[in-house]
Amino acid sequence: MDVLVPFAASGAKSRLDPVLSPAERDAFARAMLSDVLAALDVTDASATVLATGEVDCDAPVTVDDRGLDAAINERLAARSTDDSPLAVVMADLALATPAALERLFATAADVAFAPGRGGGTNAVVVRHPDFRVDYHGASIRDHRAIAADVGASVAEVDSYRLATDVDEPADLAEVLLHTDGAAVDWLVDAGFELVADGRVTVERH
Amino acid sequence: MDVLVPFAASGAKSRLDPVLSPAERDAFARAMLSDVLAALDVTDASATVLATGEVDCDAPVTVDDRGLDAAINERLAARSTDDSPLAVVMADLALATPAALERLFATAADVAFAPGRGGGTNAVVVRHPDFRVDYHGASIRDHRAIAADVGASVAEVDSYRLATDVDEPADLAEVLLHTDGAAVDWLVDAGFELVADGRVTVERH
Repeated sequence: MDVLVPFAASGAKSRLDPVLSPAERDAFARAMLSDVLAALDVTDASATVLATGEVDCDAPVTVDDRGLDAAINERLAARSTDDSPLAVVMADLALATPAALERLFATAADVAFAPGRGGGTNAVVVRHPDFRVDYHGASIRDHRAIAADVGASVAEVDSYRLATDVDEPADLAEVLLHTDGAAVDWLVDAGFELVADGRVTVERH
Repeated sequence: MDVLVPFAASGAKSRLDPVLSPAERDAFARAMLSDVLAALDVTDASATVLATGEVDCDAPVTVDDRGLDAAINERLAARSTDDSPLAVVMADLALATPAALERLFATAADVAFAPGRGGGTNAVVVRHPDFRVDYHGASIRDHRAIAADVGASVAEVDSYRLATDVDEPADLAEVLLHTDGAAVDWLVDAGFELVADGRVTVERH
């Protein structure tokens, strides 16, 4: 399975601004990318990082500074003449495991989605020549509509690990609770720990 | 599989206070309970609603106005002499499907968890005589520790549908995006619709 992992080489994760400086956000984003690539490496995936700039990581990097949709749709269009699937897996899925990714890759539908919290599409496998992505807004709803428009069958994988993209301070609690990779090491080194108060959140010391 | 569904007959869902009146919160909680019971009904589950007061629903109701832990742990203790498992499934899992519940019930470990967002334990199957629940704080972490203390093997089910308890206004977007039962009908009738702005949220008209 060929997999694209989009990655913002700088300026990403702006919603973590309340708890991390810009340089820290970039460093934490790289730790999450490392975890995602490590999980993919256990599967049969062949991952390429599709980055907005140079990035040092354990996978081939292709630099494309256009918007996400344009960069991915060009590659989907280029593959529409052959039968091999192409997957897109977001770089901030710090909870991703090989088992969760393999469930997604094992789907047989023309298009398979891993919905993200808040209406996102955190991962997708495209086997239909005419499906294109549109990540703006409530993308899972739009992607369902796009699949219907092109006559593609759809599967959705029910995975909390793939649904949990790490965007906001509260999401850091999920990393602390459910992972053991580079991202959680980074957070612990930076002083984050769990605080239980209703839904668990984090404090930094 | 015998399943307890704890339910607060009144005063529940206080974190929906910004968007729903107390009477509306009770009505919406009943709609979610109805969806959970409908999903359980498709599985081999035999569900009992463990309620703090009388409630009209499609399952037997046992009234127990003690705290959640005491009410459930008494029932776990009463079953510790036989081998039949007992499950606890929260009543606000509006996204629950028979398939997601069956994945949980099909586990073979002494204790199986469906973690909830924010450190919760949204569903559990108990097959070990000595396991007890403790729902305060970061319960998934505490439950892992309790299982380890009593020597129980543990499985965790990776399900977004079971991880999504509906507590806060933003959670209503998940109901609108991913369900087709009584809860979403109730929300639509009450004027809620999706608004896409970063993570999708809801507005009420």
